[in-house]
Amino acid sequence: MPATQTTVIKNGTIVTHDLTVRADVLVAGGVIAAIGPNLSGDHVIDATGCLIMPGGIDPHTHLEMPFMGTFSADDFESGTRAALAGGTTMVVDFALPDPGQSLMDALAVWSNKSARAHCDYSFHMAVTWWGQRVFDEMEQVAAAGITSFKHFMAYKGSLMVNDDEMFASFRRIADLGGLAMIHAENGDIVAEMAAKLLAAGTTGPEGHAYSRPAQVEGEATNRAIMIADMAGVPLYIVHTSCEESHEAIRRARQAGKRVWGEPLIQHLVLDETEYFHPDWDHAARRVMSPPFRNKAHQDSLWAGLAAGSLSCVATDHCAFTTAQKRFGLGDFTKIPNGTGGLEDRLPVLWTCGVGTGRLTPNEFVAVTSTNIAKILNCYPRKGAVAVGSDADLIIWDPEAEKTISAAGHQSNSDFNVFEGMKVRGLPRYTLSRGVVAFADGKVTAPEGHGAFVPRKGTTPV
Amino acid sequence: MPATQTTVIKNGTIVTHDLTVRADVLVAGGVIAAIGPNLSGDHVIDATGCLIMPGGIDPHTHLEMPFMGTFSADDFESGTRAALAGGTTMVVDFALPDPGQSLMDALAVWSNKSARAHCDYSFHMAVTWWGQRVFDEMEQVAAAGITSFKHFMAYKGSLMVNDDEMFASFRRIADLGGLAMIHAENGDIVAEMAAKLLAAGTTGPEGHAYSRPAQVEGEATNRAIMIADMAGVPLYIVHTSCEESHEAIRRARQAGKRVWGEPLIQHLVLDETEYFHPDWDHAARRVMSPPFRNKAHQDSLWAGLAAGSLSCVATDHCAFTTAQKRFGLGDFTKIPNGTGGLEDRLPVLWTCGVGTGRLTPNEFVAVTSTNIAKILNCYPRKGAVAVGSDADLIIWDPEAEKTISAAGHQSNSDFNVFEGMKVRGLPRYTLSRGVVAFADGKVTAPEGHGAFVPRKGTTPV
Amino acid sequence: MPATQTTVIKNGTIVTHDLTVRADVLVAGGVIAAIGPNLSGDHVIDATGCLIMPGGIDPHTHLEMPFMGTFSADDFESGTRAALAGGTTMVVDFALPDPGQSLMDALAVWSNKSARAHCDYSFHMAVTWWGQRVFDEMEQVAAAGITSFKHFMAYKGSLMVNDDEMFASFRRIADLGGLAMIHAENGDIVAEMAAKLLAAGTTGPEGHAYSRPAQVEGEATNRAIMIADMAGVPLYIVHTSCEESHEAIRRARQAGKRVWGEPLIQHLVLDETEYFHPDWDHAARRVMSPPFRNKAHQDSLWAGLAAGSLSCVATDHCAFTTAQKRFGLGDFTKIPNGTGGLEDRLPVLWTCGVGTGRLTPNEFVAVTSTNIAKILNCYPRKGAVAVGSDADLIIWDPEAEKTISAAGHQSNSDFNVFEGMKVRGLPRYTLSRGVVAFADGKVTAPEGHGAFVPRKGTTPV
Amino acid sequence: MPATQTTVIKNGTIVTHDLTVRADVLVAGGVIAAIGPNLSGDHVIDATGCLIMPGGIDPHTHLEMPFMGTFSADDFESGTRAALAGGTTMVVDFALPDPGQSLMDALAVWSNKSARAHCDYSFHMAVTWWGQRVFDEMEQVAAAGITSFKHFMAYKGSLMVNDDEMFASFRRIADLGGLAMIHAENGDIVAEMAAKLLAAGTTGPEGHAYSRPAQVEGEATNRAIMIADMAGVPLYIVHTSCEESHEAIRRARQAGKRVWGEPLIQHLVLDETEYFHPDWDHAARRVMSPPFRNKAHQDSLWAGLAAGSLSCVATDHCAFTTAQKRFGLGDFTKIPNGTGGLEDRLPVLWTCGVGTGRLTPNEFVAVTSTNIAKILNCYPRKGAVAVGSDADLIIWDPEAEKTISAAGHQSNSDFNVFEGMKVRGLPRYTLSRGVVAFADGKVTAPEGHGAFVPRKGTTPV
Ligand SMILES: [Zn+2]
Ligand SMILES: [Zn+2]
Ligand SMILES: [Zn+2]
Ligand SMILES: [Zn+2]
Ligand SMILES: [Zn+2]
Ligand SMILES: [Zn+2]
Ligand SMILES: [Zn+2]
Ligand SMILES: [Zn+2]
Repeated sequence: MPATQTTVIKNGTIVTHDLTVRADVLVAGGVIAAIGPNLSGDHVIDATGCLIMPGGIDPHTHLEMPFMGTFSADDFESGTRAALAGGTTMVVDFALPDPGQSLMDALAVWSNKSARAHCDYSFHMAVTWWGQRVFDEMEQVAAAGITSFKHFMAYKGSLMVNDDEMFASFRRIADLGGLAMIHAENGDIVAEMAAKLLAAGTTGPEGHAYSRPAQVEGEATNRAIMIADMAGVPLYIVHTSCEESHEAIRRARQAGKRVWGEPLIQHLVLDETEYFHPDWDHAARRVMSPPFRNKAHQDSLWAGLAAGSLSCVATDHCAFTTAQKRFGLGDFTKIPNGTGGLEDRLPVLWTCGVGTGRLTPNEFVAVTSTNIAKILNCYPRKGAVAVGSDADLIIWDPEAEKTISAAGHQSNSDFNVFEGMKVRGLPRYTLSRGVVAFADGKVTAPEGHGAFVPRKGTTPV
Repeated sequence: MPATQTTVIKNGTIVTHDLTVRADVLVAGGVIAAIGPNLSGDHVIDATGCLIMPGGIDPHTHLEMPFMGTFSADDFESGTRAALAGGTTMVVDFALPDPGQSLMDALAVWSNKSARAHCDYSFHMAVTWWGQRVFDEMEQVAAAGITSFKHFMAYKGSLMVNDDEMFASFRRIADLGGLAMIHAENGDIVAEMAAKLLAAGTTGPEGHAYSRPAQVEGEATNRAIMIADMAGVPLYIVHTSCEESHEAIRRARQAGKRVWGEPLIQHLVLDETEYFHPDWDHAARRVMSPPFRNKAHQDSLWAGLAAGSLSCVATDHCAFTTAQKRFGLGDFTKIPNGTGGLEDRLPVLWTCGVGTGRLTPNEFVAVTSTNIAKILNCYPRKGAVAVGSDADLIIWDPEAEKTISAAGHQSNSDFNVFEGMKVRGLPRYTLSRGVVAFADGKVTAPEGHGAFVPRKGTTPV
Repeated sequence: MPATQTTVIKNGTIVTHDLTVRADVLVAGGVIAAIGPNLSGDHVIDATGCLIMPGGIDPHTHLEMPFMGTFSADDFESGTRAALAGGTTMVVDFALPDPGQSLMDALAVWSNKSARAHCDYSFHMAVTWWGQRVFDEMEQVAAAGITSFKHFMAYKGSLMVNDDEMFASFRRIADLGGLAMIHAENGDIVAEMAAKLLAAGTTGPEGHAYSRPAQVEGEATNRAIMIADMAGVPLYIVHTSCEESHEAIRRARQAGKRVWGEPLIQHLVLDETEYFHPDWDHAARRVMSPPFRNKAHQDSLWAGLAAGSLSCVATDHCAFTTAQKRFGLGDFTKIPNGTGGLEDRLPVLWTCGVGTGRLTPNEFVAVTSTNIAKILNCYPRKGAVAVGSDADLIIWDPEAEKTISAAGHQSNSDFNVFEGMKVRGLPRYTLSRGVVAFADGKVTAPEGHGAFVPRKGTTPV
Repeated sequence: MPATQTTVIKNGTIVTHDLTVRADVLVAGGVIAAIGPNLSGDHVIDATGCLIMPGGIDPHTHLEMPFMGTFSADDFESGTRAALAGGTTMVVDFALPDPGQSLMDALAVWSNKSARAHCDYSFHMAVTWWGQRVFDEMEQVAAAGITSFKHFMAYKGSLMVNDDEMFASFRRIADLGGLAMIHAENGDIVAEMAAKLLAAGTTGPEGHAYSRPAQVEGEATNRAIMIADMAGVPLYIVHTSCEESHEAIRRARQAGKRVWGEPLIQHLVLDETEYFHPDWDHAARRVMSPPFRNKAHQDSLWAGLAAGSLSCVATDHCAFTTAQKRFGLGDFTKIPNGTGGLEDRLPVLWTCGVGTGRLTPNEFVAVTSTNIAKILNCYPRKGAVAVGSDADLIIWDPEAEKTISAAGHQSNSDFNVFEGMKVRGLPRYTLSRGVVAFADGKVTAPEGHGAFVPRKGTTPV
């Protein structure tokens, strides 16, 4: 389709975080050119019976992430292919410098990997060590359009940073008008608990869950919030999985602090009993950090999404194969942490959220797309159905059904943690900057179609 | 200006609840026709240095309200004139049937009064008594575009309804897809306390405050929330003035209940010490229900607006003259309850909220306009700067200053509770459906320009 | 045993709310004469392997309560016999005046009934109507040693009092230095819900539970707390069954209010699924108000006992026979409300509380005896193992076991809601004022042994 | 007085944490021999108009604490002399090993210092470094009767321990049946803030307060609670000074965790404005950690004492002279941290607590004596008025008055932070193990009268 041609989406109902309205959408030059009745264009997409929503944004992926001499199973090619097939039109991945490595070098590595992306993407920069060079380069990173910086309070001995490093980094981010992000688990306690469990003979995947209980996450969340507030920086807490973290976030928000929590789709629907499955493979395939929690924690997360105390649903997509998971046979601390979800996030959330009455369709859009676009300062270019916005759109069929299975999914992994779940609500078409990127069950956007989305800093809070 | 001519607002920055963006706004036929760069029209309004925001919506006024054989001092003419002068382009007033009176008759009376309005308006219907006729007429009222129903838990012996009546009414509203509203104070306790105070010789305005402390409001709020939840109806709590009410609202919202709280601009900036003023007139002029609270309650209200646990800022505009206030000399229970604020709400909130960093400009728009438009189901016709929305707009000069004074205000009252307050941030122009309704310090929209805004019910929660 | 003879309890461990200590206990003249090592007396009770604890006090019973022309199944004879068999040495029953009846007349009726008691007892006076006569007689009632006054916020049309009556009564109690008590459920809403359910065809026992959900109780608790605080009176909330009530109590206590909550042993261990039993009799036998709740509410109650936010465990013993329960066949509102528990309270609480680690033995004593003795102002005469205290004692064998069953229990009822529960921890002996009142599985205190325990008012809070 | 002679206290009213009762108290052999009416003995102490209460226990002192080559101004001689003069009959001091030093060696040093004590004492052992030797010696320390172990989360570079060390130590304490204690402030953040303030030119005492705001304490409290819970050890939080810490403690207690908070008398009555005093000496004399807070925090602490969410009032007595304070001229981080209070704790708490109605006399006893005796497992030897308990008693005259002043106080310091405060309520006599240790305004117990109070471990929670 020549770039000068236009496309009109007709007969659908636009659903944004804010509004539900019947209107046609005209796309031209990759952006939304008009919204209204009776529009016409060179090409027509029929949205009869469908909802037109902003494409999903997944703010938390780990594609082609280095790991023990190999890499996570999905790279930017397969990962973004899965994204589009599930209605997600933008992913934000984490550039992870090695200890001592230049941030700009790490960014170059990630930029290289992302060249194969089918959909748009951006990066967060991880601060995995601290020194003058990191301090200095953070400004360059921000200038390159990457204004969100991730810190790990866990993974002692590798990624973990201490409180004083975190405070120094947060103050730097405040000066740059950026966003601080954290993986919140008390790494000291996790390490001690894991050692204690292994010493006591608990070597299976259930040991992973035992070693990082909810309060270990809640404590770290509470601590990061204090440090962020002292530094005067807004804070985004990734993979909020439990009531303890949620409580700390609620308390902070009620005190006027700018703090956001991100439940994962996995934590919303899967629970800790997965780790007690008699099949080692079954349990190990679900190993991720934080681990799945019990039903009471799930209820807390759903309530938070409805009440607005939690903001975004992500995947932490970090797929591994069963073969990779088996690196941890006999020692749960060696099981690679991570699960997939990019293709399934929207259908599962729609099914378990909108389908049950927990979320309105508008809230679904907010938590899958618009909220994070605002937080990451790329709204309304992304996350909106508005004139001038990128035409990243889903034509969503709320009646379409399928059963999730590794057989036929886009991911390179040989299993799917949602295996066997019947979902109702699927994308009929996904558009990426006006291009039909997914249709008739096939990803149609070519490899490399995806472009980097730079983001500006905001005025410090 | 002929209806076929267009107006363009140039050189300003659009501020909505969601976005801040530089663009021109084209107005045609009373609605927004286009938003973007380099627009042109028949007439040009220069917004250099100004913000273009949705006009304010005041969801809580009592214009020409009957009272002891007379009426509140501002009618729809002076009240809406004050509204426009302060950047408010829509008011929602309460139709108050007498005990036994037909709801439709009361509506006819209020429709008649409102014919003189300078700006758009809608109504809430008060349920001041209960019976089959009220039950039956509520459907007609809703069909007439009035889908919000107010109940008084105070004013025992006149407006107050009991729990069983409230529950019956709430269930009816749920069936109609409407919104329940309450004035939350425990009327039994207030009546007993007032009698006890008078008996003890406390007859001055301070007795008004003593007789209705914060926990009496908090209890009623908590009770109304339970009853609404049992009835399955969304609930809007007017004039939330204290931490106790706010706490009940927070707790409900966190449990996923659809409940909203409305602080008044008066409670946000004025406190209980006003009632201890040695001048009886000074104190009596501030008598309203709930009374002003202490600083700790004010802090709670501001935090709620920032955190999103409170939703709208209103005025409860119910102006009286000093002469009317003096009906209560010697008996505080006879002082007419009410104060003005229509002209001052936006400048005072901007000054004390945005000017101090408590609220962002986007949050200012949300709490003065957009949130209530959504709650009352007239968004995006009202409360938006969007193509197709009514061109109810403020051209807001954040640097303009004035000192508030009864001398020169629009209200018919001879005093102003904000007298002497210096505000920074004022409307340069106010547009009502595309017509310049206020400019150069003068209200230019003619009497009767205002139109009724009917609202549809929503699907029951 | 002549009154001049002494008894010594040897080889046991004294457990009070405060202390655990090995010592002998010497009893003389019905009171504790000495505590220490190597005591001797005329008679010896061997407490080897046992704990010596203050006898249980059940602050909430309804013995021989009038009901639809008949009476609750246990009178003071069988009820106090059950009490002693279960380690309870004092019960506090409710004198219930009919509407319009003199309080002193009601008291005379209850005093007459209680003449048959095997163990000590006191009364609470119910305020079931309001008027000058009630106001006046309350002083006489207090002078007669009855300083706690109960109010019903439910049972609309019979026992229920309105907010203004409650406030007037609470103020009167404050003047008398007494204690206000409430049954907290919103009677208006319960009545409406029950009518709605019956109209919809829900006539079975499950309708009872549906008609009085947790938040209806929580609301009333919150309201009573406010009214008590306005009146300046301490407040005791009977049968606290849910998190909503508990939350209101916690909030009040943290604000320094003198408020206590009383979970029942039934609510701690039985849940709402009982009402869904296919056997009508099974379900109806469990009908009481408030109804049993779900596991989350149970967790809240246990946590409250451990944390001190809830104070006493009672029974609300109000036994009925299956024949009486069947009055409600076809209409759940006619099922007599009430279950038994006097004999089972201590063994069940020990088994499910101390046996599981939820409560320490000291906390067990606090919540079954000492706390209520303090609240009702009869400590340390009752509720203590101290020199000078009444020798109301349990020799508790923590290893003794039995299975609870209606076959063999003391109650006149033909069923037991704990039927089949295996308990571990039983009284070996129960002493009432020094007399061995229960031994070898037999109640040995004669009918009429029990004496009235008058209580003084306290200084108003 | 020969040890075989007896003393009787007559005409007073016994006030314990539990009870208020008129009775005589007979003392023989250093312990309470009898309580009752009409007792007689060799010597009579007249308590007419007075209350007989358990002697105060101060669980938090630093006597003769090494500091920059010198020592804190009060040693065990002057410190315990001050204690007795103020009604305190037992102090618990902190043995502080140097980094690398043997715990048993440190204990020997402290035992040596304490030989001069006028009143009884015990020790807490500080864990200021971590290693196998510390781990090993903790058992010896516990065997020596010291079962409480203190940890510093602040004082980075000297006393501070990290999370993994704290967890290891807490697990060890759990195994020993001991009590974990913490000084809760995030040392990393405090150090960064102090450096930042000094760099910005803030060198005066106010910088001390700015560098350790309330949330820095609240965070550390929350963290310690999590770590203690993971380790299964009860936790005592010293010098709880703010709502943030109190909130964390409340939340933990409500979840059934065994956690106690200790406000200091200083934080209850003095506030942060002290640090803004224009006189450097005035401000520096008040420098302690945590610093004084604002009135809202004080309200929170008082409410916690009344509600039971906070347990003990201590002093953290660590007196310095003005000359010593001046070590910090030009650099607030060098001002020695600490203030006195041993002589003033009880009179000030009575005056500001009981005298204002915030606390009952029974609650006063609980928070000054009985609660800590229970927590430290020396109840009822200490903290009780009971037969067999040590005769550590105060004869308290609630009407006696004085004005606090450094002129005439017992402490070696040349100033008093309560200077000029008029107190009402003072000890008339103080007895230490039956010996009159303070009378007629004079300390009469000889140097060296005090004895060490060993304590046993408890069963792990
Ligand atoms: Zn992570
Ligand atoms: Zn991740
Ligand atoms: Zn009102
Ligand atoms: Zn109003
Ligand atoms: Zn009841
Ligand atoms: Zn009852
Ligand atoms: Zn300290
Ligand atoms: Zn200290």
